[in-house]
Amino acid sequence: MAGFKPGDRVRVRLRENVLEGIVMPKTEFSSPSTLIIKLPNGYNVGIDLEKAEVELVERGAVAVGESPPLAKSKVSGEGDLRLSFLSTGGTIVSKVEYETGAVKPAITAEELIGMVPDFRDEASEIEVIELYRLLSEDLTPKHWERIGEEVAKRVEEGYDAVIIAHGTDTMGYTASALAFTLRNLPIPVMIVGAQRSSDRPSTDSVINLKATTSIARHAPFGEVCVVMHGDTSDTYVLAHRGVKVRKMHTSRRDAFQSINDVPLAKVTFPEKEFHLINRRYLPRGERGRFRKVGRFSDKVFLLKFFPGMECGIIDYLVDKGYRGIVIEGTGLGHIRGSCVESVKRATEEGVVVAVTSQTLFGRVNMNVYTNGRKLIEAGAIPSSDMLPETAFVKLSWLIGTYPDKDPSEIASLYTTNMVNEMNPSLDMNHYPGWYHG
Amino acid sequence: MAGFKPGDRVRVRLRENVLEGIVMPKTEFSSPSTLIIKLPNGYNVGIDLEKAEVELVERGAVAVGESPPLAKSKVSGEGDLRLSFLSTGGTIVSKVEYETGAVKPAITAEELIGMVPDFRDEASEIEVIELYRLLSEDLTPKHWERIGEEVAKRVEEGYDAVIIAHGTDTMGYTASALAFTLRNLPIPVMIVGAQRSSDRPSTDSVINLKATTSIARHAPFGEVCVVMHGDTSDTYVLAHRGVKVRKMHTSRRDAFQSINDVPLAKVTFPEKEFHLINRRYLPRGERGRFRKVGRFSDKVFLLKFFPGMECGIIDYLVDKGYRGIVIEGTGLGHIRGSCVESVKRATEEGVVVAVTSQTLFGRVNMNVYTNGRKLIEAGAIPSSDMLPETAFVKLSWLIGTYPDKDPSEIASLYTTNMVNEMNPSLDMNHYPGWYHG
Repeated sequence: MAGFKPGDRVRVRLRENVLEGIVMPKTEFSSPSTLIIKLPNGYNVGIDLEKAEVELVERGAVAVGESPPLAKSKVSGEGDLRLSFLSTGGTIVSKVEYETGAVKPAITAEELIGMVPDFRDEASEIEVIELYRLLSEDLTPKHWERIGEEVAKRVEEGYDAVIIAHGTDTMGYTASALAFTLRNLPIPVMIVGAQRSSDRPSTDSVINLKATTSIARHAPFGEVCVVMHGDTSDTYVLAHRGVKVRKMHTSRRDAFQSINDVPLAKVTFPEKEFHLINRRYLPRGERGRFRKVGRFSDKVFLLKFFPGMECGIIDYLVDKGYRGIVIEGTGLGHIRGSCVESVKRATEEGVVVAVTSQTLFGRVNMNVYTNGRKLIEAGAIPSSDMLPETAFVKLSWLIGTYPDKDPSEIASLYTTNMVNEMNPSLDMNHYPGWYHG
Repeated sequence: MAGFKPGDRVRVRLRENVLEGIVMPKTEFSSPSTLIIKLPNGYNVGIDLEKAEVELVERGAVAVGESPPLAKSKVSGEGDLRLSFLSTGGTIVSKVEYETGAVKPAITAEELIGMVPDFRDEASEIEVIELYRLLSEDLTPKHWERIGEEVAKRVEEGYDAVIIAHGTDTMGYTASALAFTLRNLPIPVMIVGAQRSSDRPSTDSVINLKATTSIARHAPFGEVCVVMHGDTSDTYVLAHRGVKVRKMHTSRRDAFQSINDVPLAKVTFPEKEFHLINRRYLPRGERGRFRKVGRFSDKVFLLKFFPGMECGIIDYLVDKGYRGIVIEGTGLGHIRGSCVESVKRATEEGVVVAVTSQTLFGRVNMNVYTNGRKLIEAGAIPSSDMLPETAFVKLSWLIGTYPDKDPSEIASLYTTNMVNEMNPSLDMNHYPGWYHG
């Protein structure tokens, strides 16, 4: 590493560019000639030492070391809402990482109120608990269970809203998982993230967070929802139904969109006004009827079909002990006819096989064409208009929750609409408008 | 089958409904108590004999038997265009199936002109060749090679347009495959399908086909494109760039949409006017410079990542001799950190691993977060803004075409923009407008 240590401030000359930043610890696979630098905008970049000139500006400019333990904190505010903020990690809580220049994401109640002063005005109490400090692609069904338990505790303790900070990558999956787990919710459970880290002027985290108190106060629904920007400016924030939302863009602030559904509600800014969009929702339940239900199986596989896919992959999954396979098929719910034999073997061995569509929009109908009918005859079950990701989570939840039910009972539950993961009536508003010149 | 034979006309009473249709042959997996009936709208339905009353209306009402051999035919017209129509199967050529009531899709030049009288007015010659009679989910990379060869022959024979009839399910994959295969095209190569079979009043096949002569005459581009409805009425048809198009809806007529790009052109109806939409296109090449390039490997796998995915699947693919894996990762191009070790092992064994995003829209950037950087360090290559499906086809084409190149040379070709499969500049028009209340 040519003498540079994590925490050093360095200046890098790369062709005509000059960058200044903090040296970060190397990762397991870093090449010996690469230096990782955290720039003032919060991004890390890898610098090839063979191509750049690097000079030391300040030795040990910031402390970069082990992460501190997960933090818990609580503050009082001047309002009336009891808010619980559970952090799992992600860009939304990356401000601290930048401020210290260290790989130490962490957030306290004081810092959260510093970012979003509305919370002090609106909340009587705000607790901030770090559950994890993970990029969301590292979350697994085991994490969904723990998050569900922690939310359930807060619901039972009488909080007015639970806000979950989460990386955006797998936010839709976690939202679905919580929706199947948390039933008869008396309050909205809101998953919030940011596409731009909180230290950037263009960050979306602040108004996404601001919207949560408005939703907590005014939403008639007791649903798990994803609360993210609706546009690329700061005009409004949407609450999407957790089982019908998907990250549709790698980087735009309005990356999250409802598929085969319309958003539940929006909060407009700067006036912070709540508007209900979708009249089909699960109303808030009575506090006493709230239930946390079930677990998740890690033996469910989401398999995207592609032309020429070798059927051996299905046999492999059966042999490895998978208990469920959600196939992301083509069109109305198809795979190549020659793979139907493997699907039949899977279902005969007690594996639940469900079929969704890689088109994302629309509804599976496996009765129209030969390969769909063959799949039905081989025991595969159609997924209506469920997103492949939601279907995967639902099957993981069903198999985890009812380990003793036989596949036909699981299939019957799978095809039952539980928390509006299926939309009985698709219309024009459920398909976006595309630019056609 | 309770005495009913394929070809019999029967009347079915199912609760309050009465249906009439033709008994179809059973499939391999039909349950003994199911009768498959073709309805007058062309759809087949499975009838549970235990729940329905079925009576015979006419024994052997239509001939249902073996399919006739693949057909070739040619007719002259009164226009000036030389058109070649290659059929691979799919809904667009299902009219005949309905008319005879038999499982015999087949199309002749006479029938095509009967459906689309414009062809007689505009074409001096129209040949119709049945290459296959397949549902598109049954097509494989081997079929892409054959289709490419047949198109190349027609280009070399001086046809003014080649029109490929194709099932819609995997149309985008085939369009990509042809785009990498057919270089310096002097004419547009148009893949056309139908979301509603040609025997239904709402069919989209007729104006999709009508649009092809306008595109053949006026398009400045020599590209492989998908020609499908732009809206749900018969107002316009779009020509989408083959490497940037995706089936986005299970059933709508405007299911095909350009992603990270705008359509190349539209043809408006009833006036049948050609409008160029996209000024970034591959211009028609000189006839002498046209080339057909390469083959496709069947040892490439498209792997969609999901939370908790067990890394063993990557090891399995390496052990099975796959030479390329396209990962459909999350967000900017991520998978769980614990699977990076398996990716590293794959690349060390010479497997090319590329990363795309399941968001579909936007561009992969693996330098922003830790797991992306780790993937790069493990030898994975980013896919810019390529669709996962296009990335899969491109890698299959590269490995099939250059079997002796080493992985680093394949990676270098993979990250090179060849036929506008990457869009260097994404803007507002490349993301659709969603209903937000």
